[in-house]
Amino acid sequence: MDNPPTHPRIKSLKERSLLVQGLREGIVAEAGLIAHGRGEAFDYLLGEKTTPEAVKAVKAAVYALQRASNPVISVNGNSTALQAREIVELSNTLDAKIEVNLFHKSQEREEKIKQKLLQQGADKVYGVGEDASERIPDLESNRGKVDPRGIGSSDVVLVMLEDGDRTEALKALGKKVIAVDLNPLSRTAQKADITIVDNIIRALPELIKAAEKKQKKEKYNNKENLKQTLEKMRAGI
Amino acid sequence: MDNPPTHPRIKSLKERSLLVQGLREGIVAEAGLIAHGRGEAFDYLLGEKTTPEAVKAVKAAVYALQRASNPVISVNGNSTALQAREIVELSNTLDAKIEVNLFHKSQEREEKIKQKLLQQGADKVYGVGEDASERIPDLESNRGKVDPRGIGSSDVVLVMLEDGDRTEALKALGKKVIAVDLNPLSRTAQKADITIVDNIIRALPELIKAAEKKQKKEKYNNKENLKQTLEKMRAGI
Repeated sequence: MDNPPTHPRIKSLKERSLLVQGLREGIVAEAGLIAHGRGEAFDYLLGEKTTPEAVKAVKAAVYALQRASNPVISVNGNSTALQAREIVELSNTLDAKIEVNLFHKSQEREEKIKQKLLQQGADKVYGVGEDASERIPDLESNRGKVDPRGIGSSDVVLVMLEDGDRTEALKALGKKVIAVDLNPLSRTAQKADITIVDNIIRALPELIKAAEKKQKKEKYNNKENLKQTLEKMRAGI
Repeated sequence: MDNPPTHPRIKSLKERSLLVQGLREGIVAEAGLIAHGRGEAFDYLLGEKTTPEAVKAVKAAVYALQRASNPVISVNGNSTALQAREIVELSNTLDAKIEVNLFHKSQEREEKIKQKLLQQGADKVYGVGEDASERIPDLESNRGKVDPRGIGSSDVVLVMLEDGDRTEALKALGKKVIAVDLNPLSRTAQKADITIVDNIIRALPELIKAAEKKQKKEKYNNKENLKQTLEKMRAGI
């Protein structure tokens, strides 16, 4: 993309370029670009900053991930296009698996996402093609498939930029769900156990930083945290 | 796109499909998909409904367009992908010209947009290729080109889903600018003389309906109207 360098929104335009590049590489779905735009608008209302509420949620998230027996980081095209290196770093720091899960499923795209993550140093990437052999009940056939060694047997799942249906299905299976989602009103944000309302570009580095220390149990109320975030957004309009 | 029919956001997913189809046809730019998503989020805060404030702005807009000596409707890839037929109908009803103006300029895309509008019954489409021979000052070379028979000599311009830079440049040239923009805080929304905060999917039919009658002069205050719209969005969070 040919972005005029004098444009006042150059930072956000650069982020967009990463997504467009991801589309051209076959990592990002076309609808993923639209979903990114949706997130951008909420980020704009947040002032494009990590809130103290998000930091609190990050710490609670890392505490849960550090105590999990089989923590899994669920990734898609957008999260890989924007933060592949950071996803691998977080997975190494937490000793958490990485599983590919796409809303618009395509084995070709899964493979490309896997390759990109392997290039960034991932040991293994779950959920690609036939590896996702286990059905999640209550979801359309294709979207409901997970890897039995990954999400299938996980107790804590970190989802980023996820669809509400899938979040609900994971909850119904008894998983603890941690979500990174810029829309505090989305079903994902509302249904998750811990919701980090932040741009993943900022949230992943925060998660890595928190994961480098052993987190202690702190009082954390997701509903309350979301309410406070909403107040900030309202003030941002 | 393969949208699960049981998905609760099926209406918005269908709108997305039109954009993705537009991308595949070469009408929509990749960045246009992201911009659409941004709009979606603001529409969500509006409750995906046309507000009384938007109706008021539509009437003021049509009054200005009906009194203009050379009214021009500026279109881009997204507006054409979503509302080509309605754009042509509005142009016929108002006897207004249609001019193509792209943020990510490409003559190939301009031609495709023109063809799509001609197929929908437009008599003539301005601003394509060499026809856009006049420079707007203060804008990067490519983006600043307009058609001297269209926007170049227009007194009132209707822009939809437009970039803030261009809106400011049009204002600096002394044009009256009417904008359709879902973000009431955008520079376009703030700088325009009349801002219709609505999804173009609903705003175009409203504009056509209003254009079928001779509009009378009514009191209209854009700042006040935007303020009331912002109040509604705040309540939507």
